[in-house]
Amino acid sequence: MAGRRINARPILVVGSVALDDVRTAAEHAPEVLGGAASYFSLAASLFAPVRMVAVVGQDFPEEHLQLFKERSIDLDGLQVKPGKTFRWRAQYSGIRLEHRVTIETQLNVFADFHPSLPDAFRDSPLVFLANIQPALQLEVLEQVRDSAFIACDTMNLWIETDRPGLERLYRRVHCVLMNAEEAVQFSGEPFLPAAARAVLSYGPRVVIVKQGEHGSILFTRDRAFVAPAMPLDVVRDPTGAGDAFAGGLLGHLAGADSGLEPVLRRAMLYGNVLGSLAVEDFSVRRIAGAGQDEIDRRLSTLIDMITLDDSRPAGR
Amino acid sequence: MAGRRINARPILVVGSVALDDVRTAAEHAPEVLGGAASYFSLAASLFAPVRMVAVVGQDFPEEHLQLFKERSIDLDGLQVKPGKTFRWRAQYSGIRLEHRVTIETQLNVFADFHPSLPDAFRDSPLVFLANIQPALQLEVLEQVRDSAFIACDTMNLWIETDRPGLERLYRRVHCVLMNAEEAVQFSGEPFLPAAARAVLSYGPRVVIVKQGEHGSILFTRDRAFVAPAMPLDVVRDPTGAGDAFAGGLLGHLAGADSGLEPVLRRAMLYGNVLGSLAVEDFSVRRIAGAGQDEIDRRLSTLIDMITLDDSRPAGR
Repeated sequence: MAGRRINARPILVVGSVALDDVRTAAEHAPEVLGGAASYFSLAASLFAPVRMVAVVGQDFPEEHLQLFKERSIDLDGLQVKPGKTFRWRAQYSGIRLEHRVTIETQLNVFADFHPSLPDAFRDSPLVFLANIQPALQLEVLEQVRDSAFIACDTMNLWIETDRPGLERLYRRVHCVLMNAEEAVQFSGEPFLPAAARAVLSYGPRVVIVKQGEHGSILFTRDRAFVAPAMPLDVVRDPTGAGDAFAGGLLGHLAGADSGLEPVLRRAMLYGNVLGSLAVEDFSVRRIAGAGQDEIDRRLSTLIDMITLDDSRPAGR
Repeated sequence: MAGRRINARPILVVGSVALDDVRTAAEHAPEVLGGAASYFSLAASLFAPVRMVAVVGQDFPEEHLQLFKERSIDLDGLQVKPGKTFRWRAQYSGIRLEHRVTIETQLNVFADFHPSLPDAFRDSPLVFLANIQPALQLEVLEQVRDSAFIACDTMNLWIETDRPGLERLYRRVHCVLMNAEEAVQFSGEPFLPAAARAVLSYGPRVVIVKQGEHGSILFTRDRAFVAPAMPLDVVRDPTGAGDAFAGGLLGHLAGADSGLEPVLRRAMLYGNVLGSLAVEDFSVRRIAGAGQDEIDRRLSTLIDMITLDDSRPAGR
């Protein structure tokens, strides 16, 4: 069951909050709320209390802060610095918007970002280290204590430029999130099972490979679980799907025992539900507007897609 | 349970039997048994009696005929014509052998092939129309009667050159097998759910989209089922995976009620098991050598990969 649980544990997220400019062949969304921490927080806050650590400039619109506050996202770790907010401009092409080109990245206040956790955030039981420099992700780990479930994301840039940093990171987290290309790139293994084993060998209990329209796979030491992608007829903006996925994943784990395989498996499906919502509109619009009924319906669809035995007659 | 069932119904297959020449960066298999009907028959004959309709030349090696006979494949519909057997030469590249180039196709005796069913084949309850010209697939349908489950495969060439023939075919079969590119090409729909609905609108009860390493999806009118791909560490030769898949699929259906959704869903998993075996070695070697234990073990792995709730502890 989706919905914020009374006993759901708080989740700390550290990552980017941005103003995005996204184009497709058909549409253009200028100056919209973006950044991994934004997508993650709005998704995860449907399930559990969220604590955000990030930085924005003085130009960051009040309406976005209001949106976070409406979802009770704790902004005590959100630094507001003189200067402009991190800006990212990208263009998608292809009939399924499968090709992305980053046109411009303006780091702005993000250039000097160092995560600084308020004291009250240090004991966060769940932690999501969104895609930022491994060194900054490691700085976060110096500040937390006794976290039960730490997950991290990354990107091809850090695999190329700071592999030692990533290796240090992977030795200290419970869960590594990657896409298929990153898993192959990091491991040098062409096929996912061996690639996942290579990452698991650093110590994480869980490796999750995100594959967009092909769903996502959970690898643990000796098992794998395939979470199907929600069948969609429209994709308007793929931005943020992976972070929304992580939000659904950790969101569900926050209300249950993240050490149990069935809980992890169900969390994968919630991840795919939130990812599917993210891509149906620009920016965080669909996640911000999603209701429990809609999430539960999509979860039911995904469960039906992996149900082997039932008593209903075929097709027609 | 895999294994040929006492009551499994016979399956008719019509398609190519070939001599293949396959290269990868590392290996070369010259003059090996190939062709859709070969892969299909050897896979399906693990489950049910198979009746083959095809053509070979007088150069076709006796050892391949022996292999078919050892599996009790009924060769009464196999024409042996003066001339050379159909030959196909291809090269795979890419770290996962994901790129294929056909170097040469020699139709030889296949050029004048017209399927001619022995009388005893006409009442075959299950039929697989492997990838050949739609006109020939339709010729087969003129010769069968009261088949309970007719499935057809195709390729991009016929979508480009004989769309009307394919449309006629799709109005007369129960199950259409395609890969994702073909589904998009045929329907003009970029996303699979809409593409599958477009194909279903011609009349088949079932559309199956084969996606190689991403598994396969079963679409019926209002449901979808995702059959995960077997996690593999090695792919030596992707040739024939789709036909071996079809052999596992129809093989399981031959021993059960193909009108029931749970039966179709389980058949999808058997399809993926046989497809996974096919790619682990050149030609039909792995399918020809596979045992029931191995098939059952792989089926268990795939079922575990879509099992949501169980009581085992996570990873470690």
